[in-house]
Amino acid sequence: MQDINLHFTGDFHAVGAANNLLCAMIDNHIFQGNSLRLDPRKITWRRCVDMNDRQLRSIVCGLGNVGGMPREDGFDITVASEVMALLCLSENITVLKEKLSRIIVGYTFDNEPVTAGQLKAQGAMAALLKDALKPNLVQTLEGTPALIHGGPFANIAHGCNSIIATKTALKLGDYAVTEAGFGADLGAEKFFDIKCRLAGLTPSAVVVVATIRALKHHGGVAKDSLTKENLNALEKGLPNLLQHLENIQTVFGLPCVVALNRFPTDTEAELALAEEKCKALGVNAVLTEVWAKGGEGGAALAEEVVRVCEQKSEFNFSYELSLPILEKLERIVKNIYHGEGVQLLPAAKKQLEQLTKLGFSELPICMAKTQYSFSDNPLLLGAPRGFEVTIRNLKVSAGAGFIIALAGDIMTMPGLPKVPAAENIDIDSEGRIGGLF
Amino acid sequence: MQDINLHFTGDFHAVGAANNLLCAMIDNHIFQGNSLRLDPRKITWRRCVDMNDRQLRSIVCGLGNVGGMPREDGFDITVASEVMALLCLSENITVLKEKLSRIIVGYTFDNEPVTAGQLKAQGAMAALLKDALKPNLVQTLEGTPALIHGGPFANIAHGCNSIIATKTALKLGDYAVTEAGFGADLGAEKFFDIKCRLAGLTPSAVVVVATIRALKHHGGVAKDSLTKENLNALEKGLPNLLQHLENIQTVFGLPCVVALNRFPTDTEAELALAEEKCKALGVNAVLTEVWAKGGEGGAALAEEVVRVCEQKSEFNFSYELSLPILEKLERIVKNIYHGEGVQLLPAAKKQLEQLTKLGFSELPICMAKTQYSFSDNPLLLGAPRGFEVTIRNLKVSAGAGFIIALAGDIMTMPGLPKVPAAENIDIDSEGRIGGLF
Amino acid sequence: MQDINLHFTGDFHAVGAANNLLCAMIDNHIFQGNSLRLDPRKITWRRCVDMNDRQLRSIVCGLGNVGGMPREDGFDITVASEVMALLCLSENITVLKEKLSRIIVGYTFDNEPVTAGQLKAQGAMAALLKDALKPNLVQTLEGTPALIHGGPFANIAHGCNSIIATKTALKLGDYAVTEAGFGADLGAEKFFDIKCRLAGLTPSAVVVVATIRALKHHGGVAKDSLTKENLNALEKGLPNLLQHLENIQTVFGLPCVVALNRFPTDTEAELALAEEKCKALGVNAVLTEVWAKGGEGGAALAEEVVRVCEQKSEFNFSYELSLPILEKLERIVKNIYHGEGVQLLPAAKKQLEQLTKLGFSELPICMAKTQYSFSDNPLLLGAPRGFEVTIRNLKVSAGAGFIIALAGDIMTMPGLPKVPAAENIDIDSEGRIGGLF
Amino acid sequence: MQDINLHFTGDFHAVGAANNLLCAMIDNHIFQGNSLRLDPRKITWRRCVDMNDRQLRSIVCGLGNVGGMPREDGFDITVASEVMALLCLSENITVLKEKLSRIIVGYTFDNEPVTAGQLKAQGAMAALLKDALKPNLVQTLEGTPALIHGGPFANIAHGCNSIIATKTALKLGDYAVTEAGFGADLGAEKFFDIKCRLAGLTPSAVVVVATIRALKHHGGVAKDSLTKENLNALEKGLPNLLQHLENIQTVFGLPCVVALNRFPTDTEAELALAEEKCKALGVNAVLTEVWAKGGEGGAALAEEVVRVCEQKSEFNFSYELSLPILEKLERIVKNIYHGEGVQLLPAAKKQLEQLTKLGFSELPICMAKTQYSFSDNPLLLGAPRGFEVTIRNLKVSAGAGFIIALAGDIMTMPGLPKVPAAENIDIDSEGRIGGLF
Repeated sequence: MQDINLHFTGDFHAVGAANNLLCAMIDNHIFQGNSLRLDPRKITWRRCVDMNDRQLRSIVCGLGNVGGMPREDGFDITVASEVMALLCLSENITVLKEKLSRIIVGYTFDNEPVTAGQLKAQGAMAALLKDALKPNLVQTLEGTPALIHGGPFANIAHGCNSIIATKTALKLGDYAVTEAGFGADLGAEKFFDIKCRLAGLTPSAVVVVATIRALKHHGGVAKDSLTKENLNALEKGLPNLLQHLENIQTVFGLPCVVALNRFPTDTEAELALAEEKCKALGVNAVLTEVWAKGGEGGAALAEEVVRVCEQKSEFNFSYELSLPILEKLERIVKNIYHGEGVQLLPAAKKQLEQLTKLGFSELPICMAKTQYSFSDNPLLLGAPRGFEVTIRNLKVSAGAGFIIALAGDIMTMPGLPKVPAAENIDIDSEGRIGGLF
Repeated sequence: MQDINLHFTGDFHAVGAANNLLCAMIDNHIFQGNSLRLDPRKITWRRCVDMNDRQLRSIVCGLGNVGGMPREDGFDITVASEVMALLCLSENITVLKEKLSRIIVGYTFDNEPVTAGQLKAQGAMAALLKDALKPNLVQTLEGTPALIHGGPFANIAHGCNSIIATKTALKLGDYAVTEAGFGADLGAEKFFDIKCRLAGLTPSAVVVVATIRALKHHGGVAKDSLTKENLNALEKGLPNLLQHLENIQTVFGLPCVVALNRFPTDTEAELALAEEKCKALGVNAVLTEVWAKGGEGGAALAEEVVRVCEQKSEFNFSYELSLPILEKLERIVKNIYHGEGVQLLPAAKKQLEQLTKLGFSELPICMAKTQYSFSDNPLLLGAPRGFEVTIRNLKVSAGAGFIIALAGDIMTMPGLPKVPAAENIDIDSEGRIGGLF
Repeated sequence: MQDINLHFTGDFHAVGAANNLLCAMIDNHIFQGNSLRLDPRKITWRRCVDMNDRQLRSIVCGLGNVGGMPREDGFDITVASEVMALLCLSENITVLKEKLSRIIVGYTFDNEPVTAGQLKAQGAMAALLKDALKPNLVQTLEGTPALIHGGPFANIAHGCNSIIATKTALKLGDYAVTEAGFGADLGAEKFFDIKCRLAGLTPSAVVVVATIRALKHHGGVAKDSLTKENLNALEKGLPNLLQHLENIQTVFGLPCVVALNRFPTDTEAELALAEEKCKALGVNAVLTEVWAKGGEGGAALAEEVVRVCEQKSEFNFSYELSLPILEKLERIVKNIYHGEGVQLLPAAKKQLEQLTKLGFSELPICMAKTQYSFSDNPLLLGAPRGFEVTIRNLKVSAGAGFIIALAGDIMTMPGLPKVPAAENIDIDSEGRIGGLF
Repeated sequence: MQDINLHFTGDFHAVGAANNLLCAMIDNHIFQGNSLRLDPRKITWRRCVDMNDRQLRSIVCGLGNVGGMPREDGFDITVASEVMALLCLSENITVLKEKLSRIIVGYTFDNEPVTAGQLKAQGAMAALLKDALKPNLVQTLEGTPALIHGGPFANIAHGCNSIIATKTALKLGDYAVTEAGFGADLGAEKFFDIKCRLAGLTPSAVVVVATIRALKHHGGVAKDSLTKENLNALEKGLPNLLQHLENIQTVFGLPCVVALNRFPTDTEAELALAEEKCKALGVNAVLTEVWAKGGEGGAALAEEVVRVCEQKSEFNFSYELSLPILEKLERIVKNIYHGEGVQLLPAAKKQLEQLTKLGFSELPICMAKTQYSFSDNPLLLGAPRGFEVTIRNLKVSAGAGFIIALAGDIMTMPGLPKVPAAENIDIDSEGRIGGLF
């Protein structure tokens, strides 16, 4: 377990090395004469490090007249690198190299995009990723095999593990379960519209995880009162869950199950109310107590999943790739978030034009939105209506193969807290590590 | 082989992560109120990355009013990190943690040193280094076992592999052979005076590697004429080799062997001359043809090494730790380099005073000098006399446990060439990597 | 005339010197131990230079370990310095020093404001401004005396010449005419609410300058069609002018005159229409042809001004100082701009709280808004209704004595154009300068 | 007097404005497409400000993606600007423009120099300098007229007032006295070899100013013992003065007078000894007591000056312009400083080659050396022998028309002290300034 939390099999280090090799090649290209005419002010490819280091968010590099050309740059954490996203979307080395070569690293003085392929970086980057491309097999405390592979951000990337891992799991087991990060408006939507579409996967069923606590929060209860029974608030918050279920069923055409992650403070009345409301939509809500009881605590859920997997279904995407970018955005906002529409700020409008001109309009959309609300306002709880989603900017991840729609400020480099966890981590003379959890 | 050249077992990534965790903790400490009163202009601990990236040599970080406090910083390559040096000088986790905690990261507004221990970083750093501390067992193409472990710089650090690897090799085999980087004036001297002293090792014999080509170079032959027989030049260059042999024998008190690394263009007359001159000092020069013939090409050398290992010897250091810093410097310069003495530039004088005041005067010396000459002037070939060595600055590596004497500009972050090797590295669909060598 | 455009009497240089002396004292204070605990990231006082130099908009200074503490900074043009604004609002040296000492230069690590007075800078700054405080007497080509004195920005400052100059003019002549920058929604409002209030001035009448061209522009005519007669567009654009007139009459309680600045392309029908509409509000619109005919071309206007000066009037401000900041903002937006109200972005809300807490709530407001529209959207022409004005941030100029409300991005450092005017400026051997105009 | 110390007639502001206009045009040129291919890392033209502001010594400008191209830059104080030096060496506007146009602002990516003329800046710069080119007439407290005009550094520039002022003085008076900054090894040498040569001036005689205190200092007396009589030390220090006198007489061929600036602590015996030693060289040493007695205190000196002005003399330069750069350096070092010779550090050697290649070898030399010793070591007092002068670098001031030889670190931007004088400067309500002196 501690190994997973430290270097694990080195995948993240490899992603970082590939990302930063490309950086070094970009600046070396400028230093060596800049035949591609890259504008130092328009380099969009940032460096990365697997460390929460706010000091590196914004830097000026190339100083001292000993290095390259002075320019502004910054570091993201490794999981925010487009290399992480595209690694997870590559089924084999050949695809990986193609995706790497399509990465846009910046723009010329004439505003033409420059790619990693033009810098001849894709081969060496792929060589560094050779082993990181392979899924990592681990086991749970009960011995159940599990694949851990890849970890792209769930806002500026698609938030799912790798296609290779999912396909490997499908070949090795009778049932393969995979997770998609954040709420179902983000995680499930991207899993379907980006990963399943690209990989040709057709899911059999969906498990939506919910808690009574979170539903009461959506009903307006303050954090410190969540442990008290409150049927009114629960009823007020349930539309949030029900909207997710309805989206799965009607938009994506899949059967679903609710996994009610039980907390000791949940009351029977609360659980019953939640189950009843789900039932009304034809969905069974099953209690899970895996945290307390291990695998046994999830048996009931497993049985319900097996049951719904047998049901007939017709899987759909929430939009077609051939639609114009703006229309794709509206499909997501109207059909998944149930908002009124989309408002593009001037920068986003300008990018929309440029991305269309550069031929990227048929890429899927990757929404970078808050996970706290269906809307782009984290304070709009429940199942809000009547809102517009404001897109501040659009950005293409040409290597990963999607267009990021930024509906808010996304932090791609966290900082350490007042007392960093590292202060409490220790290792004794026998190599036993403490303080990790 | 390619794995060794790519990520290998992840040791370098672990060293980089430990180094950079300390950086993040330093800047976070300043950001969170700076109770230790670290002066942002006096942080001496730099970030590192395992990449030749000249753009990062000199940066300003903490910008944008989104990060920490603006300050000047820079990246070294990972092998130049003091973490690499001290990892190789730590016999176990307990020592590792002690050394980590003694690292000086910078100075306060009142010029007091601040250590990694004061930032409580040593436990987490050691945890990250848990596996990197263990030697890596590999084998040659002929199946001979070898340990590859650690790679500190041979100028700003001591240039030897780890104590753990050497001691492991001594336990596992009848003979353990280890390498010390650069010429014997640097590599051997530091191996003896730093590593052997610290680890309590007593070597049995020394192999000095030489080539006819290099000796002719020391005799003044230009690079493009080295393939022609030139006995005059060879005779003029041989004093360089002979001085190394004499140092080993008289200063360090050890028997030695010369391994003459044969090139196709070496003539019999040249080889005979070199052997004859060595013989006059009581040293056998043995031809090695490992490059062409594999293990068999080294059999004669091995036999001579076995022979001299049986000889009686009395191992000495070139200076005692209790001497004042300046005297230690003079011992090395006079006895090993055969120069007239040492000149300290003003910055070095000031540092000498401060390091003495801070109690570091009993640490061994780590000379950061050119490997192209016994002197500090790369153009003084052969066995020069009458020169002084100019020390520009002194710097303590309190964690690793030595004082670096800077006798020249040392580049701790290389850059990529006009056509980076990465442009030619590729990997095919079967995972076969090309272009690495 | 060229002297006015070059160094003139050195006032701008003096303002720049005073501004930059304060900068040097700030950074020297930090360098010398920082006993006031100024946070280098929270210095709000910027350097200035009397030059359009975009390269200096955003810099990092204090680098090289030879200067002060590294921090982010930038230069504004001299007229954007708060020193310029407060110089124009100071009636004598004593007031000047008081205002200088109240300047806020930044905030401590604990977010307390630090003033120029705490740095003891006001005396030396005032000494540098000794002569700049005195008005400069010049004459027109016809010999009419005029005072040129001060030039604060009309967005982030109040855009009027100095109180001293105005009072001097009032003492020296029968009638004193002064100009207030930008449209009457900005220029007149600030002249009344900031300058007249502070100086105890009561204007007798107001001249609103207008052109047929600009009114047609407000009626929707494109720039290249403004020379054609277009009575429809003129009628559509006239409400812009009429709203200004109404504001003057009903809000500020003053009689007014329209000076119709005649262009050769204005048609008689257009002029007649404009005059008719003004007349309906009881205001005479008088043609002025000063550009073509000199003083004679303004005689009619002068007579009308003399006439209305005799009328009885009751001068009012558009808001009382004792109102809370938000209410003052709303008075301006509703009564002068005729918008629906004010929206504060989060940063502005936070500042509003802080400024109130710091005791600045009784200062007048200085609106930094586009001059192209009554609203904050430069594209809303004419006399728009139904809009809200968005305040991005609030900023106190504690020295000048007002609160700046930022309703848009304000550029405080222009750049040079593709072909800078400087390329065409020349001086011959007799000292005759060409290319200035 | 205070006006001279504040803005005076604005000359310094004008020099700063001209200097900074060129900066803005350089960066604007790069921003607008950079058709001259200026390398942002090789801009040698720095910004300036008339303020001791160490924070601006080293900056990064062009940040924020709102300005130009990021690059390293820095500010000097205005007197260190080459514009100041060339203004003082220009006899009229035509020459001024020529000199301005020859300024080298930096180098292209191919290392070709780029001039202010190529940027078409000379006309506008000259226009800004129109009035600064004219000498400023002031008077002493006794009413004697004096010209104050220009103030170039005496190390990186030639340290004399303007040619125009000197020629004006020669035309207006019977005798014109001018000052040359620092010791006669620097001030007099540059006055003769640079200014007189360029302006075609032939001085009649030289006044060397000396004090008993300084001569005792050259004899080894510590600062706090200078007030005690010490004939031994005085005798030991006098060779310093005598060497200056000998240089004037034999190298430059001019008669000279010593002005002994009397201090209350000088004893009669000391004064007599100094006079006697000077007399031995045929030079009269005359006491001056101007500080205590005003003009009367200088009457004796004036009479002696008048006397020696009548003597026949044959004025020579210390080197011919046609000599190679290195030989010119040696003439100065051997004949004026009485050292052994010149040592060029590698950077200086490289520059020597480049400047020769660029056609600058016939320019005069401007030595940037310490004023505390004839040598480049401030601790070598008296009239040292046997030293070499080390030239770290050469730099052309192509506009001013000389080659700067850097024999030490020259600070071109001072900092403020712990308690800046500005803290004590004040102005009262009547405009009376205090604290300036």
